Amino acid sequence: MSFATVQDLETPSVLIDLDLMEDNIAVMQGRCDDLGIHYRPHIKTHKIPDIARRQLEAGAAGIACQKVSEAEVFAAAGIRDIQIPYNILGRRKAGRLASLAKEADVTVTVDSKPVIDGIAEAAQATGATVGMMVELVSLGERTGTMPEDALRLARHIQATDNLRFAGVMIYPSNAAIRPRLLETLDLLAGAGIAVEMISGGGSGAIRDAHLLPELTELRVGTCIFWDWNSVAADYASFDQCAMRVRATVISANEPSRVILDSGSKAIHSETIDDQFGYIVEYPAARLRKVNEEHGYVDCSACSRIPSVGEIVHIIPVHTCVVTNLHNQLYGVRGEAIEVIWDVAARGLVW
Amino acid sequence: MSFATVQDLETPSVLIDLDLMEDNIAVMQGRCDDLGIHYRPHIKTHKIPDIARRQLEAGAAGIACQKVSEAEVFAAAGIRDIQIPYNILGRRKAGRLASLAKEADVTVTVDSKPVIDGIAEAAQATGATVGMMVELVSLGERTGTMPEDALRLARHIQATDNLRFAGVMIYPSNAAIRPRLLETLDLLAGAGIAVEMISGGGSGAIRDAHLLPELTELRVGTCIFWDWNSVAADYASFDQCAMRVRATVISANEPSRVILDSGSKAIHSETIDDQFGYIVEYPAARLRKVNEEHGYVDCSACSRIPSVGEIVHIIPVHTCVVTNLHNQLYGVRGEAIEVIWDVAARGLVW
Repeated sequence: MSFATVQDLETPSVLIDLDLMEDNIAVMQGRCDDLGIHYRPHIKTHKIPDIARRQLEAGAAGIACQKVSEAEVFAAAGIRDIQIPYNILGRRKAGRLASLAKEADVTVTVDSKPVIDGIAEAAQATGATVGMMVELVSLGERTGTMPEDALRLARHIQATDNLRFAGVMIYPSNAAIRPRLLETLDLLAGAGIAVEMISGGGSGAIRDAHLLPELTELRVGTCIFWDWNSVAADYASFDQCAMRVRATVISANEPSRVILDSGSKAIHSETIDDQFGYIVEYPAARLRKVNEEHGYVDCSACSRIPSVGEIVHIIPVHTCVVTNLHNQLYGVRGEAIEVIWDVAARGLVW
Repeated sequence: MSFATVQDLETPSVLIDLDLMEDNIAVMQGRCDDLGIHYRPHIKTHKIPDIARRQLEAGAAGIACQKVSEAEVFAAAGIRDIQIPYNILGRRKAGRLASLAKEADVTVTVDSKPVIDGIAEAAQATGATVGMMVELVSLGERTGTMPEDALRLARHIQATDNLRFAGVMIYPSNAAIRPRLLETLDLLAGAGIAVEMISGGGSGAIRDAHLLPELTELRVGTCIFWDWNSVAADYASFDQCAMRVRATVISANEPSRVILDSGSKAIHSETIDDQFGYIVEYPAARLRKVNEEHGYVDCSACSRIPSVGEIVHIIPVHTCVVTNLHNQLYGVRGEAIEVIWDVAARGLVW
């Protein structure tokens, strides 16, 4: 290993505090265990098979990922229970999904007949069986269907060769969605359709999970690292945030403005309270603007101003999108670099 | 080549219209030629050596890039005149810069003594000579110094072994900065310091270039593809935008909302007028929200609603950050894929 300590790293570099990450894995697994449901980590947050392996060793039932190409990376690493909670559309993608389903236990979600039919055609051509859940539209109003349509789609899945009806998916899952879920389950029960899996998800889903006792599993990703969004939503504290972007002050010519070498290419451009990240060493500073390679920090509320060359650490607003920008993450314990991970599933858009 | 036409591509995929790109290269080169100044394309927009080669063949004087690691990629591709308009800080980075300066003509910019000294130490250790410009702070208030400091830094560069004072850099350059530039040039002339290069830049810099006759070159990147930001600033029209993200409608269960398979991982999360991209086929649609893998489209103002499986093309808000998300760009002429480029300098944050 060429890097012994974080002091040897150039910036920007993404550090993962291994103690915090291990705690975060154990806490979410413990909460799901207490509820008697499966924990299915969404790997979009880390995109690294070795981290998924650690989550599975801690008790996770399988993984979720968002793209066929991501699933391929994790299947190649030996992971067998893979859920893709996404409408997969496209002939090549469906073909690759069907091929994958011959070597791993793959479940997808659907919210319309064309999506079902495209996957069925590929599955029939390869002889694979693909598990398929219907997605119930939530208050987030993204993808998904209403209960009557969910029943119609479930019947269609059951009637189609090489598909296996696997249950119902919700994102995000919270107490408010329960009436719609119960209505759907009643319709399915009335039609004699068995529901094996009811999958909830979202960063805050654990909070309401006891109010949705029908859930059989939770898909949560961000909880492995947490981020400023999580802190703002009161899911975690800054002390639990395992990802920090190590940055250098590269310019400090003004009394109240310094510039970091970390911009939208390093910490992304999502904001919270018009800020692009939380600077651990300068909590009163405002990271108020980013260009691709520059972070603009307003230090007017700071008692001390950082100087050129000084190293600071940024807790990002949204950890998942930061992972996707970087080719490596550095797993650290204190100052020691214990592991350098390639972000194996980074940038896989298909 | 495994893909013959765009019909064979899965989505999201980033298409570059080669006719438009070639026009855009020719237009900017022609404008600089007319002004009698050098054009130095900033490669951050494409990050692809083959495209830089096309720009150089059209008459460009050299390239600009933002990171030592990016410079290494382009030097390895045979490009010899490389400017890094950035404060490079860090022992390893400075060492790599100095190594690079032994094989290519490398110029950096600085705005403080610590940055100069770090690079000088590395250059002296390797025996390289590094060109160094002082950056004048502009109205953008990012990095850079005021005229008196610029003189002080220029003297320090001249007095330091293995450094070559190369001139003055401004970003963004516009007519309003001219008094400060003239003051700086007067101070340098008064001190007998020759100024070889005065480098202006920014997407709109060509507009004011005739009002800044002191400039010897322009660094502009975005003009090779243009984007919605450029259209909004009246630098270009949508018809000149060479980058389009090919996307699929994956959900259309509501009368006025459809979901695309292109979210912040495909088109980034910068906005203009609270929209995340311009949908060519549905100009009245509003791409109003993104998650990582989902684009939310409000179709309430559209006369026709797209259906599941339909392909649309998105002109991104900011082209450079989109390039950085993708591993490949597809160069197309009409429906034919003429070239598949690896985004060689993608994700290089050091």
